[in-house]
Amino acid sequence: MKRVPKHIGIIPDGNRRWAEGKGLKKEEGYAYGLEPGLRLLRAAKDCGIQELTYYGFTVDNCKRPKEQVTAFSKACIEAVKMIEQENAELHIIGNTDSHCFPAELLSYANRRRQPVCDEGTIRVNFLVNYGWEWDMKNGWASGEIPRIDMVIRWGGMCRLSGFLPIQTVYSDIYIVKELWPDFQEKQFADALQWYQKQDVTLGG
Amino acid sequence: MKRVPKHIGIIPDGNRRWAEGKGLKKEEGYAYGLEPGLRLLRAAKDCGIQELTYYGFTVDNCKRPKEQVTAFSKACIEAVKMIEQENAELHIIGNTDSHCFPAELLSYANRRRQPVCDEGTIRVNFLVNYGWEWDMKNGWASGEIPRIDMVIRWGGMCRLSGFLPIQTVYSDIYIVKELWPDFQEKQFADALQWYQKQDVTLGG
Repeated sequence: MKRVPKHIGIIPDGNRRWAEGKGLKKEEGYAYGLEPGLRLLRAAKDCGIQELTYYGFTVDNCKRPKEQVTAFSKACIEAVKMIEQENAELHIIGNTDSHCFPAELLSYANRRRQPVCDEGTIRVNFLVNYGWEWDMKNGWASGEIPRIDMVIRWGGMCRLSGFLPIQTVYSDIYIVKELWPDFQEKQFADALQWYQKQDVTLGG
Repeated sequence: MKRVPKHIGIIPDGNRRWAEGKGLKKEEGYAYGLEPGLRLLRAAKDCGIQELTYYGFTVDNCKRPKEQVTAFSKACIEAVKMIEQENAELHIIGNTDSHCFPAELLSYANRRRQPVCDEGTIRVNFLVNYGWEWDMKNGWASGEIPRIDMVIRWGGMCRLSGFLPIQTVYSDIYIVKELWPDFQEKQFADALQWYQKQDVTLGG
Protein backbone atom coordinates (compact mmCIF):
# COMPACT_ATOMS: atom_id res chain seq x y z
CA MET A 1 0.00 0.00 0.00
CA LYS A 2 1.18 3.46 -0.90
CA ARG A 3 -0.56 5.40 1.83
CA VAL A 4 -1.01 3.69 5.17
CA PRO A 5 -2.90 5.67 7.81
CA LYS A 6 -0.81 6.03 10.96
CA HIS A 7 -3.71 6.24 13.33
CA ILE A 8 -7.18 4.74 12.88
CA GLY A 9 -10.24 5.38 15.00
CA ILE A 10 -12.76 2.55 15.37
CA ILE A 11 -16.47 3.07 16.13
CA PRO A 12 -17.79 -0.45 16.70
CA ASP A 13 -21.51 0.29 16.37
CA GLY A 14 -24.41 -2.11 15.96
CA ASN A 15 -24.06 -4.64 18.80
CA ARG A 16 -27.61 -4.15 20.02
CA ARG A 17 -29.17 -4.26 16.55
CA TRP A 18 -27.19 -7.43 15.86
CA ALA A 19 -28.47 -9.06 19.04
CA GLU A 20 -32.07 -8.17 18.22
CA GLY A 21 -31.62 -9.62 14.74
CA LYS A 22 -30.49 -12.89 16.33
CA GLY A 23 -33.44 -12.96 18.73
CA LEU A 24 -31.21 -12.19 21.69
CA LYS A 25 -31.64 -9.47 24.28
CA LYS A 26 -30.04 -6.17 23.25
CA GLU A 27 -27.41 -6.31 25.99
CA GLU A 28 -26.27 -9.75 24.88
CA GLY A 29 -24.76 -8.21 21.73
CA TYR A 30 -21.75 -6.63 23.39
CA ALA A 31 -19.98 -9.90 24.16
CA TYR A 32 -20.02 -10.69 20.44
CA GLY A 33 -18.00 -7.55 19.79
CA LEU A 34 -14.94 -8.82 21.64
CA GLU A 35 -13.48 -11.25 19.15
CA PRO A 36 -13.95 -8.76 16.25
CA GLY A 37 -11.93 -6.21 18.21
CA LEU A 38 -9.07 -8.64 18.63
CA ARG A 39 -9.11 -9.70 14.99
CA LEU A 40 -9.10 -6.08 13.88
CA LEU A 41 -6.15 -5.33 16.15
CA ARG A 42 -4.16 -8.17 14.62
CA ALA A 43 -5.11 -7.13 11.07
CA ALA A 44 -4.05 -3.55 11.79
CA LYS A 45 -0.72 -4.73 13.15
CA ASP A 46 -0.14 -6.85 10.05
CA CYS A 47 -0.70 -3.76 7.88
CA GLY A 48 1.77 -1.65 9.82
CA ILE A 49 -0.80 0.63 11.45
CA GLN A 50 0.95 2.38 14.34
CA GLU A 51 -2.03 3.34 16.46
CA LEU A 52 -5.68 2.37 17.00
CA THR A 53 -8.28 4.12 19.09
CA TYR A 54 -11.44 2.19 20.00
CA TYR A 55 -14.65 3.94 21.01
CA GLY A 56 -15.56 1.81 24.02
CA PHE A 57 -18.44 3.51 25.77
CA THR A 58 -19.41 7.05 26.65
CA VAL A 59 -20.78 9.01 29.56
CA ASP A 60 -24.00 9.35 27.49
CA ASN A 61 -24.22 5.58 26.96
CA CYS A 62 -24.44 5.18 30.75
CA LYS A 63 -27.95 6.62 30.68
CA ARG A 64 -29.13 3.39 29.02
CA PRO A 65 -30.96 0.61 30.93
CA LYS A 66 -28.86 -0.87 33.71
CA GLU A 67 -28.48 -4.31 32.13
CA GLN A 68 -26.95 -2.70 29.04
CA VAL A 69 -24.53 -0.60 31.10
CA THR A 70 -23.46 -3.69 33.02
CA ALA A 71 -23.01 -5.65 29.79
CA PHE A 72 -20.91 -3.10 27.91
CA SER A 73 -18.78 -2.35 30.97
CA LYS A 74 -18.07 -6.06 31.31
CA ALA A 75 -17.23 -6.28 27.60
CA CYS A 76 -14.77 -3.41 27.93
CA ILE A 77 -13.01 -5.04 30.86
CA GLU A 78 -12.77 -8.28 28.86
CA ALA A 79 -11.47 -6.38 25.83
CA VAL A 80 -8.70 -4.79 27.86
CA LYS A 81 -7.65 -8.21 29.16
CA MET A 82 -7.51 -9.50 25.59
CA ILE A 83 -5.50 -6.53 24.29
CA GLU A 84 -3.06 -6.99 27.15
CA GLN A 85 -2.12 -10.38 25.77
CA GLU A 86 -1.09 -8.75 22.48
CA ASN A 87 2.06 -6.77 21.89
CA ALA A 88 0.34 -3.43 22.45
CA GLU A 89 0.93 -0.22 24.35
CA LEU A 90 -2.47 0.26 25.97
CA HIS A 91 -3.99 3.51 27.21
CA ILE A 92 -7.45 4.08 28.60
CA ILE A 93 -9.00 7.54 28.38
CA GLY A 94 -12.20 8.55 30.11
CA ASN A 95 -13.84 10.07 33.13
CA THR A 96 -12.50 8.06 36.07
CA ASP A 97 -14.28 10.26 38.61
CA SER A 98 -17.70 8.77 37.88
CA HIS A 99 -19.08 5.51 39.26
CA CYS A 100 -19.62 4.40 35.65
CA PHE A 101 -15.89 3.95 35.19
CA PRO A 102 -15.08 0.27 35.94
CA ALA A 103 -12.82 -0.01 38.98
CA GLU A 104 -10.95 -2.89 37.29
CA LEU A 105 -9.65 -0.47 34.67
CA LEU A 106 -8.46 2.35 36.92
CA SER A 107 -4.85 1.22 36.78
CA TYR A 108 -4.81 1.63 32.97
CA ALA A 109 -6.29 5.11 32.96
CA ASN A 110 -4.27 8.27 32.72
CA ARG A 111 -0.96 6.49 32.23
CA ARG A 112 1.57 8.74 30.59
CA ARG A 113 2.07 8.12 26.91
CA GLN A 114 5.55 6.86 26.13
CA PRO A 115 7.29 9.12 23.61
CA VAL A 116 8.61 6.15 21.64
CA CYS A 117 6.95 2.80 21.11
CA ASP A 118 8.89 -0.46 20.73
CA GLU A 119 9.31 -1.91 17.24
CA GLY A 120 6.45 -4.29 16.49
CA THR A 121 4.26 -2.75 19.16
CA ILE A 122 0.98 -1.08 18.28
CA ARG A 123 -0.45 1.71 20.38
CA VAL A 124 -4.03 1.08 21.42
CA ASN A 125 -6.21 3.73 23.03
CA PHE A 126 -9.48 2.64 24.50
CA LEU A 127 -12.14 5.21 25.35
CA VAL A 128 -13.96 4.12 28.49
CA ASN A 129 -16.67 6.34 30.00
CA TYR A 130 -15.49 9.01 27.59
CA GLY A 131 -17.45 12.20 26.93
CA TRP A 132 -16.57 15.00 24.56
CA GLU A 133 -17.91 17.52 27.04
CA TRP A 134 -15.88 15.94 29.82
CA ASP A 135 -12.84 16.04 27.51
CA MET A 136 -13.38 19.73 26.70
CA LYS A 137 -14.08 20.81 30.28
CA ASN A 138 -10.83 19.22 31.37
CA GLY A 139 -8.78 21.26 28.92
CA TRP A 140 -8.94 18.42 26.36
CA ALA A 141 -7.99 15.59 28.65
CA SER A 142 -7.38 13.39 25.60
CA GLY A 143 -4.73 15.80 24.34
CA GLU A 144 -1.97 13.18 24.25
CA ILE A 145 -3.84 11.20 21.60
CA PRO A 146 -2.63 12.42 18.19
CA ARG A 147 -4.63 13.30 15.09
CA ILE A 148 -6.70 10.44 13.63
CA ASP A 149 -6.17 9.87 9.90
CA MET A 150 -9.19 7.67 9.30
CA VAL A 151 -12.27 6.74 11.30
CA ILE A 152 -13.95 3.44 10.43
CA ARG A 153 -17.49 3.11 11.71
CA TRP A 154 -19.47 -0.12 11.59
CA GLY A 155 -23.26 -0.28 11.57
CA GLY A 156 -24.11 2.07 8.71
CA MET A 157 -24.49 5.44 10.43
CA CYS A 158 -22.41 8.29 9.03
CA ARG A 159 -21.61 10.36 12.10
CA LEU A 160 -18.93 10.75 14.75
CA SER A 161 -21.19 10.63 17.84
CA GLY A 162 -18.83 12.72 19.95
CA PHE A 163 -15.74 10.65 19.12
CA LEU A 164 -12.66 12.80 19.96
CA PRO A 165 -13.80 16.03 18.26
CA ILE A 166 -10.34 17.60 18.11
CA GLN A 167 -8.44 14.54 16.83
CA THR A 168 -11.07 13.91 14.13
CA VAL A 169 -11.30 17.40 12.60
CA TYR A 170 -9.53 16.22 9.43
CA SER A 171 -10.26 12.47 9.57
CA ASP A 172 -11.52 10.65 6.53
CA ILE A 173 -14.61 8.71 7.62
CA TYR A 174 -15.33 5.27 6.19
CA ILE A 175 -18.67 3.61 6.86
CA VAL A 176 -19.14 -0.15 6.97
CA LYS A 177 -22.80 -1.12 6.50
CA GLU A 178 -22.46 -4.38 8.43
CA LEU A 179 -22.95 -4.45 12.18
CA TRP A 180 -19.85 -4.69 14.37
CA PRO A 181 -20.30 -8.31 15.50
CA ASP A 182 -20.32 -9.21 11.78
CA PHE A 183 -16.79 -7.82 11.39
CA GLN A 184 -14.74 -9.35 8.60
CA GLU A 185 -11.09 -8.64 7.80
CA LYS A 186 -12.18 -7.80 4.26
CA GLN A 187 -14.13 -4.78 5.53
CA PHE A 188 -10.96 -3.44 7.11
CA ALA A 189 -8.94 -4.13 3.96
CA ASP A 190 -11.59 -2.32 1.88
CA ALA A 191 -11.36 0.69 4.19
CA LEU A 192 -7.60 0.82 3.72
CA GLN A 193 -8.01 0.56 -0.04
CA TRP A 194 -10.54 3.41 0.02
CA TYR A 195 -8.11 5.49 2.06
CA GLN A 196 -5.54 5.21 -0.74
CA LYS A 197 -7.81 7.27 -2.95
CA GLN A 198 -8.40 10.13 -0.51
CA ASP A 199 -6.12 13.11 -0.80
CA VAL A 200 -5.05 14.45 2.55
CA THR A 201 -5.13 18.23 2.57
CA LEU A 202 -5.51 18.92 6.30
CA GLY A 203 -7.92 21.68 5.40
CA GLY A 204 -5.43 23.41 3.07
CA MET B 1 -41.63 14.94 5.81
CA LYS B 2 -41.76 13.48 9.28
CA ARG B 3 -38.34 14.61 10.48
CA VAL B 4 -37.03 17.91 9.18
CA PRO B 5 -33.55 18.87 10.36
CA LYS B 6 -33.63 22.27 12.07
CA HIS B 7 -30.10 23.23 11.19
CA ILE B 8 -28.07 22.03 8.18
CA GLY B 9 -24.37 22.58 7.56
CA ILE B 10 -23.21 22.88 3.95
CA ILE B 11 -19.69 22.02 2.75
CA PRO B 12 -19.65 23.19 -0.88
CA ASP B 13 -16.55 21.30 -2.03
CA GLY B 14 -15.30 20.66 -5.54
CA ASN B 15 -15.17 24.09 -7.21
CA ARG B 16 -11.55 23.70 -8.32
CA ARG B 17 -11.97 20.13 -9.58
CA TRP B 18 -15.06 21.28 -11.50
CA ALA B 19 -13.14 24.12 -13.14
CA GLU B 20 -10.32 21.78 -14.14
CA GLY B 21 -12.83 19.41 -15.65
CA LYS B 22 -14.20 22.24 -17.78
CA GLY B 23 -10.73 23.28 -18.92
CA LEU B 24 -10.82 26.43 -16.81
CA LYS B 25 -8.26 27.67 -14.32
CA LYS B 26 -8.81 26.29 -10.81
CA GLU B 27 -9.71 29.69 -9.36
CA GLU B 28 -12.40 30.24 -11.96
CA GLY B 29 -14.53 27.55 -10.31
CA TYR B 30 -15.59 29.57 -7.29
CA ALA B 31 -17.84 31.95 -9.22
CA TYR B 32 -19.85 28.93 -10.38
CA GLY B 33 -20.64 28.10 -6.78
CA LEU B 34 -22.69 31.23 -6.20
CA GLU B 35 -25.92 30.36 -7.97
CA PRO B 36 -25.99 26.86 -6.39
CA GLY B 37 -25.75 28.50 -2.96
CA LEU B 38 -28.74 30.70 -3.67
CA ARG B 39 -30.81 27.84 -5.09
CA LEU B 40 -30.01 25.70 -2.05
CA LEU B 41 -31.04 28.52 0.28
CA ARG B 42 -34.41 28.80 -1.45
CA ALA B 43 -34.93 25.03 -1.45
CA ALA B 44 -34.13 24.91 2.26
CA LYS B 45 -36.60 27.68 3.00
CA ASP B 46 -39.30 25.87 1.03
CA CYS B 47 -38.75 22.79 3.17
CA GLY B 48 -39.04 24.70 6.43
CA ILE B 49 -35.37 24.45 7.41
CA GLN B 50 -34.78 27.04 10.12
CA GLU B 51 -31.04 27.51 9.83
CA LEU B 52 -28.21 26.94 7.33
CA THR B 53 -24.48 27.26 7.90
CA TYR B 54 -22.24 27.52 4.83
CA TYR B 55 -18.55 26.68 4.99
CA GLY B 56 -17.17 29.67 3.06
CA PHE B 57 -13.42 29.59 3.40
CA THR B 58 -10.95 28.87 6.17
CA VAL B 59 -7.75 30.28 7.59
CA ASP B 60 -6.01 27.20 6.13
CA ASN B 61 -7.46 27.89 2.65
CA CYS B 62 -5.64 31.25 2.66
CA LYS B 63 -2.33 29.42 2.28
CA ARG B 64 -3.33 28.59 -1.32
CA PRO B 65 -1.99 30.49 -4.37
CA LYS B 66 -2.91 34.17 -4.32
CA GLU B 67 -5.22 34.02 -7.35
CA GLN B 68 -7.31 31.36 -5.63
CA VAL B 69 -7.53 33.37 -2.39
CA THR B 70 -8.62 36.44 -4.34
CA ALA B 71 -11.21 34.41 -6.24
CA PHE B 72 -12.84 32.70 -3.25
CA SER B 73 -12.85 35.92 -1.23
CA LYS B 74 -14.62 37.67 -4.07
CA ALA B 75 -17.12 34.80 -4.35
CA CYS B 76 -17.88 35.05 -0.63
CA ILE B 77 -18.53 38.78 -0.86
CA GLU B 78 -20.85 38.16 -3.81
CA ALA B 79 -22.60 35.35 -1.94
CA VAL B 80 -23.30 37.64 1.00
CA LYS B 81 -24.79 40.27 -1.30
CA MET B 82 -27.04 37.61 -2.81
CA ILE B 83 -28.17 36.25 0.56
CA GLU B 84 -28.99 39.80 1.67
CA GLN B 85 -31.62 40.01 -1.04
CA GLU B 86 -33.39 36.99 0.46
CA ASN B 87 -35.46 37.00 3.60
CA ALA B 88 -32.60 35.77 5.78
CA GLU B 89 -31.02 36.63 9.11
CA LEU B 90 -27.34 36.63 8.13
CA HIS B 91 -24.34 36.13 10.42
CA ILE B 92 -20.71 35.89 9.44
CA ILE B 93 -18.31 34.02 11.69
CA GLY B 94 -14.55 34.03 11.28
CA ASN B 95 -11.26 35.60 12.23
CA THR B 96 -11.72 39.28 11.48
CA ASP B 97 -8.28 40.16 12.87
CA SER B 98 -6.40 38.77 9.87
CA HIS B 99 -5.84 40.53 6.54
CA CYS B 100 -7.53 37.53 4.87
CA PHE B 101 -10.89 38.64 6.18
CA PRO B 102 -12.54 40.75 3.45
CA ALA B 103 -13.03 44.34 4.65
CA GLU B 104 -16.37 44.48 2.81
CA LEU B 105 -17.76 41.87 5.20
CA LEU B 106 -16.63 43.36 8.51
CA SER B 107 -20.01 44.91 9.21
CA TYR B 108 -21.67 41.47 9.08
CA ALA B 109 -19.24 39.79 11.43
CA ASN B 110 -19.82 39.31 15.09
CA ARG B 111 -23.35 40.68 15.05
CA ARG B 112 -25.36 39.45 17.97
CA ARG B 113 -27.70 36.60 17.22
CA GLN B 114 -31.34 37.60 17.68
CA PRO B 115 -33.07 35.28 20.13
CA VAL B 116 -36.14 35.02 17.91
CA CYS B 117 -36.26 35.01 14.14
CA ASP B 118 -39.22 36.45 12.17
CA GLU B 119 -41.73 34.02 10.68
CA GLY B 120 -40.63 33.07 7.14
CA THR B 121 -37.05 34.12 7.81
CA ILE B 122 -34.21 31.62 7.61
CA ARG B 123 -31.06 32.02 9.65
CA VAL B 124 -27.92 31.82 7.54
CA ASN B 125 -24.45 31.59 9.02
CA PHE B 126 -21.52 32.04 6.72
CA LEU B 127 -18.05 30.98 7.80
CA VAL B 128 -15.50 33.41 6.39
CA ASN B 129 -11.82 33.05 7.26
CA TYR B 130 -12.91 30.48 9.83
CA GLY B 131 -10.50 28.17 11.60
CA TRP B 132 -11.31 25.52 14.18
CA GLU B 133 -8.14 26.40 16.07
CA TRP B 134 -9.03 30.08 15.99
CA ASP B 135 -12.52 29.12 17.21
CA MET B 136 -11.12 27.04 20.08
CA LYS B 137 -8.47 29.58 21.15
CA ASN B 138 -11.16 32.22 21.40
CA GLY B 139 -13.22 30.17 23.85
CA TRP B 140 -15.32 28.78 20.97
CA ALA B 141 -16.04 32.03 19.23
CA SER B 142 -18.77 30.29 17.22
CA GLY B 143 -20.61 29.39 20.42
CA GLU B 144 -23.82 31.16 19.43
CA ILE B 145 -24.29 28.80 16.49
CA PRO B 146 -26.42 25.87 17.68
CA ARG B 147 -25.98 22.15 17.10
CA ILE B 148 -26.01 21.04 13.47
CA ASP B 149 -28.41 18.16 12.76
CA MET B 150 -27.07 17.23 9.34
CA VAL B 151 -23.99 18.15 7.34
CA ILE B 152 -24.26 17.84 3.55
CA ARG B 153 -20.93 17.79 1.74
CA TRP B 154 -20.58 18.00 -2.02
CA GLY B 155 -17.59 16.65 -3.94
CA GLY B 156 -17.41 13.07 -2.65
CA MET B 157 -15.06 13.35 0.33
CA CYS B 158 -16.32 11.98 3.64
CA ARG B 159 -14.80 14.29 6.21
CA LEU B 160 -15.56 17.45 8.13
CA SER B 161 -12.32 19.35 7.36
CA GLY B 162 -12.46 21.42 10.54
CA PHE B 163 -16.09 22.47 10.09
CA LEU B 164 -17.39 23.63 13.52
CA PRO B 165 -16.10 20.68 15.59
CA ILE B 166 -18.38 21.32 18.57
CA GLN B 167 -21.61 21.89 16.64
CA THR B 168 -21.01 18.77 14.51
CA VAL B 169 -20.27 16.22 17.26
CA TYR B 170 -23.61 14.48 16.67
CA SER B 171 -24.33 15.55 13.07
CA ASP B 172 -25.41 13.01 10.49
CA ILE B 173 -23.13 13.45 7.49
CA TYR B 174 -24.46 13.06 3.96
CA ILE B 175 -22.08 12.96 1.02
CA VAL B 176 -23.03 14.09 -2.48
CA LYS B 177 -20.67 12.67 -5.10
CA GLU B 178 -21.22 15.53 -7.56
CA LEU B 179 -19.09 18.65 -7.36
CA TRP B 180 -20.64 21.77 -5.84
CA PRO B 181 -21.08 23.76 -9.09
CA ASP B 182 -23.15 20.78 -10.34
CA PHE B 183 -25.65 21.29 -7.51
CA GLN B 184 -29.16 20.10 -8.24
CA GLU B 185 -32.20 20.51 -5.99
CA LYS B 186 -32.70 16.75 -6.19
CA GLN B 187 -29.42 16.16 -4.33
CA PHE B 188 -30.73 18.26 -1.46
CA ALA B 189 -34.09 16.48 -1.53
CA ASP B 190 -32.28 13.11 -1.45
CA ALA B 191 -30.28 14.25 1.58
CA LEU B 192 -33.47 15.17 3.41
CA GLN B 193 -35.01 11.80 2.50
CA TRP B 194 -31.91 10.03 3.82
CA TYR B 195 -32.14 12.00 7.04
CA GLN B 196 -35.63 10.60 7.64
CA LYS B 197 -34.09 7.18 8.12
CA GLN B 198 -31.41 8.19 10.62
CA ASP B 199 -32.31 7.81 14.28
CA VAL B 200 -31.09 10.71 16.36
CA THR B 201 -29.66 9.48 19.63
CA LEU B 202 -27.33 12.37 20.52
CA GLY B 203 -24.83 9.78 21.67
CA GLY B 204 -27.35 8.13 24.05
